[in-house]
Amino acid sequence: MDIKLKPIGIVHSPFKRLEDIEPGKYAYPRGFNSIHGQLEIFEEYEAGLKDIEGFTHLVVIFVFHKAEGFKLHTKPLLDDTLRGVFSTRSPHRPNPIGVTVVNVRGRKGNILEVSGVDMIEGTPILDLKPYTPRDQKSSLRLGWLDDKMKKES
Amino acid sequence: MDIKLKPIGIVHSPFKRLEDIEPGKYAYPRGFNSIHGQLEIFEEYEAGLKDIEGFTHLVVIFVFHKAEGFKLHTKPLLDDTLRGVFSTRSPHRPNPIGVTVVNVRGRKGNILEVSGVDMIEGTPILDLKPYTPRDQKSSLRLGWLDDKMKKES
Repeated sequence: MDIKLKPIGIVHSPFKRLEDIEPGKYAYPRGFNSIHGQLEIFEEYEAGLKDIEGFTHLVVIFVFHKAEGFKLHTKPLLDDTLRGVFSTRSPHRPNPIGVTVVNVRGRKGNILEVSGVDMIEGTPILDLKPYTPRDQKSSLRLGWLDDKMKKES
Repeated sequence: MDIKLKPIGIVHSPFKRLEDIEPGKYAYPRGFNSIHGQLEIFEEYEAGLKDIEGFTHLVVIFVFHKAEGFKLHTKPLLDDTLRGVFSTRSPHRPNPIGVTVVNVRGRKGNILEVSGVDMIEGTPILDLKPYTPRDQKSSLRLGWLDDKMKKES
Protein backbone atom coordinates (compact mmCIF):
# COMPACT_ATOMS: atom_id res chain seq x y z
CA MET A 1 0.00 0.00 0.00
CA ASP A 2 1.61 3.21 -1.21
CA ILE A 3 0.33 6.60 -0.13
CA LYS A 4 0.77 9.41 -2.62
CA LEU A 5 0.95 12.97 -1.38
CA LYS A 6 1.42 16.35 -3.05
CA PRO A 7 3.01 19.47 -1.58
CA ILE A 8 0.56 22.28 -0.79
CA GLY A 9 3.31 24.89 -0.54
CA ILE A 10 6.95 25.58 0.31
CA VAL A 11 8.92 27.05 3.19
CA HIS A 12 11.01 30.21 2.83
CA SER A 13 13.78 30.20 5.40
CA PRO A 14 16.93 32.11 6.26
CA PHE A 15 18.62 28.67 6.30
CA LYS A 16 19.55 28.12 2.70
CA ARG A 17 21.36 24.82 3.29
CA LEU A 18 21.37 22.23 6.07
CA GLU A 19 24.86 23.40 7.03
CA ASP A 20 23.44 26.83 7.92
CA ILE A 21 21.75 25.38 11.02
CA GLU A 22 23.92 25.18 14.11
CA PRO A 23 23.08 21.72 15.58
CA GLY A 24 23.30 22.97 19.18
CA LYS A 25 20.16 25.07 18.60
CA TYR A 26 18.06 21.89 18.76
CA ALA A 27 18.98 21.49 22.43
CA TYR A 28 17.03 24.61 23.40
CA PRO A 29 13.24 24.42 23.66
CA ARG A 30 13.04 27.92 22.20
CA GLY A 31 16.20 27.72 20.09
CA PHE A 32 14.43 28.61 16.84
CA ASN A 33 11.83 31.04 18.22
CA SER A 34 13.62 34.06 16.76
CA ILE A 35 13.98 32.51 13.29
CA HIS A 36 11.47 34.10 10.94
CA GLY A 37 10.32 32.83 7.57
CA GLN A 38 7.33 32.41 5.30
CA LEU A 39 5.04 29.55 4.45
CA GLU A 40 4.02 30.02 0.82
CA ILE A 41 0.83 28.07 0.19
CA PHE A 42 0.12 27.39 -3.47
CA GLU A 43 -2.74 29.54 -4.75
CA GLU A 44 -5.01 26.58 -5.45
CA TYR A 45 -5.05 25.91 -1.67
CA GLU A 46 -5.21 29.53 -0.45
CA ALA A 47 -8.92 29.31 0.42
CA GLY A 48 -8.01 26.66 3.02
CA LEU A 49 -6.12 29.33 5.02
CA LYS A 50 -9.35 31.12 6.02
CA ASP A 51 -9.53 31.62 9.83
CA ILE A 52 -5.91 30.59 10.35
CA GLU A 53 -4.78 33.99 11.65
CA GLY A 54 -6.91 33.40 14.75
CA PHE A 55 -4.41 30.79 15.93
CA THR A 56 -1.04 31.64 17.44
CA HIS A 57 0.56 28.28 16.65
CA LEU A 58 0.45 25.92 13.69
CA VAL A 59 1.66 22.38 13.27
CA VAL A 60 3.56 22.22 9.97
CA ILE A 61 4.00 18.83 8.31
CA PHE A 62 6.72 18.83 5.70
CA VAL A 63 9.07 16.67 3.66
CA PHE A 64 12.75 16.26 4.53
CA HIS A 65 13.50 16.68 0.85
CA LYS A 66 17.29 16.53 1.24
CA ALA A 67 17.23 13.23 3.14
CA GLU A 68 18.33 10.20 1.16
CA GLY A 69 17.62 6.79 2.61
CA PHE A 70 17.48 5.89 6.28
CA LYS A 71 18.99 3.65 8.92
CA LEU A 72 16.92 2.14 11.75
CA HIS A 73 19.78 2.90 14.15
CA THR A 74 21.10 6.41 13.82
CA LYS A 75 23.35 8.81 15.70
CA PRO A 76 21.32 11.93 16.65
CA LEU A 77 22.85 15.39 16.28
CA LEU A 78 22.75 15.81 20.06
CA ASP A 79 24.20 12.42 21.00
CA ASP A 80 27.05 10.13 20.05
CA THR A 81 25.30 6.81 20.65
CA LEU A 82 23.27 4.92 18.05
CA ARG A 83 19.55 5.33 18.80
CA GLY A 84 16.41 3.85 17.27
CA VAL A 85 15.37 6.27 14.54
CA PHE A 86 11.83 6.60 15.97
CA SER A 87 13.30 7.90 19.23
CA THR A 88 15.00 10.70 17.27
CA ARG A 89 13.89 13.60 15.07
CA SER A 90 16.49 12.66 12.42
CA PRO A 91 15.46 13.51 8.83
CA HIS A 92 16.68 10.09 7.69
CA ARG A 93 13.52 8.08 8.44
CA PRO A 94 11.53 5.39 6.63
CA ASN A 95 9.05 8.13 5.66
CA PRO A 96 11.00 11.43 5.49
CA ILE A 97 8.33 13.56 7.15
CA GLY A 98 9.02 16.36 9.61
CA VAL A 99 6.75 18.10 12.11
CA THR A 100 7.47 21.56 13.52
CA VAL A 101 5.25 23.93 15.50
CA VAL A 102 5.55 27.52 14.31
CA ASN A 103 4.18 30.81 15.58
CA VAL A 104 1.86 32.71 13.19
CA ARG A 105 2.84 36.40 12.85
CA GLY A 106 0.51 37.39 10.01
CA ARG A 107 -0.87 36.55 6.61
CA LYS A 108 -0.91 38.24 3.22
CA GLY A 109 -3.03 36.20 0.86
CA ASN A 110 -1.29 32.88 0.38
CA ILE A 111 1.80 33.84 2.41
CA LEU A 112 2.01 33.18 6.14
CA GLU A 113 4.63 35.05 8.13
CA VAL A 114 5.87 32.72 10.86
CA SER A 115 8.60 32.33 13.45
CA GLY A 116 10.09 29.20 14.94
CA VAL A 117 11.39 28.06 11.56
CA ASP A 118 13.82 25.11 11.65
CA MET A 119 13.32 24.01 8.05
CA ILE A 120 15.53 24.98 5.13
CA GLU A 121 14.60 27.08 2.09
CA GLY A 122 12.39 25.24 -0.38
CA THR A 123 11.11 22.59 2.03
CA PRO A 124 7.86 21.13 0.62
CA ILE A 125 4.85 21.58 2.94
CA LEU A 126 2.30 18.76 3.15
CA ASP A 127 -0.15 20.12 5.69
CA LEU A 128 -0.91 22.84 8.25
CA LYS A 129 -3.01 22.27 11.36
CA PRO A 130 -3.96 24.47 14.31
CA TYR A 131 -1.97 23.63 17.47
CA THR A 132 -4.52 23.16 20.23
CA PRO A 133 -4.57 22.34 23.96
CA ARG A 134 -4.83 18.69 22.91
CA ASP A 135 -1.20 19.02 21.69
CA GLN A 136 0.05 20.47 24.98
CA LYS A 137 1.59 17.75 27.13
CA SER A 138 3.37 18.08 30.44
CA SER A 139 5.43 15.92 32.81
CA LEU A 140 7.59 14.67 29.96
CA ARG A 141 10.26 12.04 30.35
CA LEU A 142 12.83 12.37 27.58
CA GLY A 143 14.88 9.19 27.57
CA TRP A 144 18.33 9.59 26.02
CA LEU A 145 17.54 13.23 25.25
CA ASP A 146 16.98 14.21 28.87
CA ASP A 147 20.46 15.44 29.79
CA LYS A 148 21.05 16.92 26.32
CA MET A 149 18.22 19.46 26.52
CA LYS A 150 19.13 22.84 27.99
CA LYS A 151 16.89 24.83 30.29
CA GLU A 152 17.16 28.26 28.63
CA SER A 153 16.90 29.38 25.02
CA MET B 1 6.10 16.36 -7.59
CA ASP B 2 4.49 13.37 -5.92
CA ILE B 3 5.72 12.03 -2.61
CA LYS B 4 5.31 8.31 -2.06
CA LEU B 5 5.08 6.97 1.46
CA LYS B 6 4.62 3.53 2.96
CA PRO B 7 2.99 2.62 6.26
CA ILE B 8 5.41 1.45 8.97
CA GLY B 9 2.62 -0.05 11.07
CA ILE B 10 -1.03 0.11 12.09
CA VAL B 11 -3.07 1.35 15.04
CA HIS B 12 -5.17 -0.96 17.18
CA SER B 13 -7.98 0.98 18.78
CA PRO B 14 -11.17 0.39 20.74
CA PHE B 15 -12.82 2.61 18.10
CA LYS B 16 -13.68 0.18 15.33
CA ARG B 17 -15.47 2.74 13.17
CA LEU B 18 -15.52 6.55 12.97
CA GLU B 19 -19.04 6.49 14.43
CA ASP B 20 -17.66 5.00 17.64
CA ILE B 21 -16.01 8.32 18.56
CA GLU B 22 -18.26 10.77 20.35
CA PRO B 23 -17.41 14.14 18.66
CA GLY B 24 -17.71 16.09 21.93
CA LYS B 25 -14.57 14.32 23.22
CA TYR B 26 -12.43 16.50 20.92
CA ALA B 27 -13.43 19.56 22.96
CA TYR B 28 -11.52 18.31 26.00
CA PRO B 29 -7.72 18.68 26.11
CA ARG B 30 -7.54 15.29 27.84
CA GLY B 31 -10.67 13.80 26.27
CA PHE B 32 -8.84 10.75 24.90
CA ASN B 33 -6.28 10.27 27.70
CA SER B 34 -8.07 7.20 29.03
CA ILE B 35 -8.35 5.53 25.61
CA HIS B 36 -5.81 2.73 25.36
CA GLY B 37 -4.59 0.99 22.23
CA GLN B 38 -1.55 -0.46 20.52
CA LEU B 39 0.78 0.75 17.82
CA GLU B 40 1.86 -2.33 15.87
CA ILE B 41 5.07 -1.52 14.03
CA PHE B 42 5.84 -3.90 11.17
CA GLU B 43 8.71 -6.21 12.04
CA GLU B 44 11.02 -4.83 9.37
CA TYR B 45 11.00 -1.51 11.28
CA GLU B 46 11.12 -2.89 14.83
CA ALA B 47 14.81 -2.05 15.29
CA GLY B 48 13.87 1.62 14.92
CA LEU B 49 11.92 1.41 18.22
CA LYS B 50 15.12 1.06 20.29
CA ASP B 51 15.24 3.65 23.13
CA ILE B 52 11.62 4.69 22.59
CA GLU B 53 10.42 3.49 26.03
CA GLY B 54 12.49 6.27 27.59
CA PHE B 55 10.01 8.82 26.32
CA THR B 56 6.60 9.40 27.89
CA HIS B 57 5.05 10.95 24.79
CA LEU B 58 5.22 10.19 21.08
CA VAL B 59 4.05 12.13 18.06
CA VAL B 60 2.21 9.70 15.78
CA ILE B 61 1.83 10.60 12.11
CA PHE B 62 -0.84 8.58 10.38
CA VAL B 63 -3.14 8.38 7.38
CA PHE B 64 -6.84 9.30 7.57
CA HIS B 65 -7.52 6.20 5.50
CA LYS B 66 -11.31 6.55 5.58
CA ALA B 67 -11.27 10.13 4.28
CA GLU B 68 -12.30 10.56 0.65
CA GLY B 69 -11.59 13.88 -1.01
CA PHE B 70 -11.52 17.27 0.67
CA LYS B 71 -13.03 20.72 0.63
CA LEU B 72 -11.01 23.87 1.32
CA HIS B 73 -13.91 25.20 3.40
CA THR B 74 -15.28 22.67 5.86
CA LYS B 75 -17.58 22.54 8.85
CA PRO B 76 -15.58 21.29 11.87
CA LEU B 77 -17.14 18.77 14.27
CA LEU B 78 -17.11 21.40 17.02
CA ASP B 79 -18.56 24.29 15.00
CA ASP B 80 -21.39 25.00 12.59
CA THR B 81 -19.60 27.60 10.47
CA LEU B 82 -17.50 26.85 7.39
CA ARG B 83 -13.79 27.18 8.25
CA GLY B 84 -10.62 26.99 6.19
CA VAL B 85 -9.54 23.36 6.31
CA PHE B 86 -6.02 24.28 7.54
CA SER B 87 -7.58 25.91 10.62
CA THR B 88 -9.26 22.60 11.47
CA ARG B 89 -8.15 19.06 12.28
CA SER B 90 -10.69 17.61 9.81
CA PRO B 91 -9.60 14.34 8.18
CA HIS B 92 -10.77 15.66 4.79
CA ARG B 93 -7.60 17.55 3.80
CA PRO B 94 -5.55 17.90 0.61
CA ASN B 95 -3.09 15.42 2.14
CA PRO B 96 -5.06 13.14 4.50
CA ILE B 97 -2.44 13.07 7.26
CA GLY B 98 -3.20 13.15 10.97
CA VAL B 99 -0.98 13.95 13.95
CA THR B 100 -1.76 12.80 17.50
CA VAL B 101 0.41 12.82 20.62
CA VAL B 102 0.09 9.59 22.60
CA ASN B 103 1.42 8.46 25.95
CA VAL B 104 3.76 5.44 25.92
CA ARG B 105 2.77 2.79 28.50
CA GLY B 106 5.15 0.00 27.47
CA ARG B 107 6.60 -2.04 24.65
CA LYS B 108 6.66 -5.72 23.80
CA GLY B 109 8.86 -6.21 20.74
CA ASN B 110 7.14 -4.45 17.87
CA ILE B 111 4.01 -3.54 19.85
CA LEU B 112 3.75 -0.27 21.74
CA GLU B 113 1.07 0.03 24.41
CA VAL B 114 -0.21 3.61 24.36
CA SER B 115 -2.98 5.82 25.68
CA GLY B 116 -4.48 8.97 24.21
CA VAL B 117 -5.70 7.09 21.14
CA ASP B 118 -8.10 9.05 18.90
CA MET B 119 -7.53 6.99 15.75
CA ILE B 120 -9.69 4.10 14.57
CA GLU B 121 -8.72 0.44 14.24
CA GLY B 122 -6.45 -0.25 11.28
CA THR B 123 -5.19 3.32 10.83
CA PRO B 124 -1.90 3.20 8.87
CA ILE B 125 1.06 4.70 10.75
CA LEU B 126 3.63 6.70 8.78
CA ASP B 127 6.03 7.80 11.50
CA LEU B 128 6.71 8.02 15.23
CA LYS B 129 8.76 10.78 16.84
CA PRO B 130 9.63 11.64 20.43
CA TYR B 131 7.59 14.58 21.78
CA THR B 132 10.10 17.02 23.26
CA PRO B 133 10.09 20.40 25.03
CA ARG B 134 10.39 21.95 21.55
CA ASP B 135 6.78 20.77 20.97
CA GLN B 136 5.47 22.35 24.17
CA LYS B 137 3.91 25.73 23.44
CA SER B 138 2.07 28.04 25.80
CA SER B 139 -0.01 31.23 25.63
CA LEU B 140 -2.11 29.83 22.81
CA ARG B 141 -4.77 31.80 21.00
CA LEU B 142 -7.29 29.44 19.41
CA GLY B 143 -9.33 31.47 16.93
CA TRP B 144 -12.75 29.98 16.18
CA LEU B 145 -11.97 27.05 18.49
CA ASP B 146 -11.48 29.20 21.58
CA ASP B 147 -14.98 29.09 23.04
CA LYS B 148 -15.51 25.47 21.94
CA MET B 149 -12.72 24.02 24.06
CA LYS B 150 -13.68 22.94 27.58
CA LYS B 151 -11.49 23.42 30.62
CA GLU B 152 -11.75 19.95 32.17
CA SER B 153 -11.40 16.46 30.71
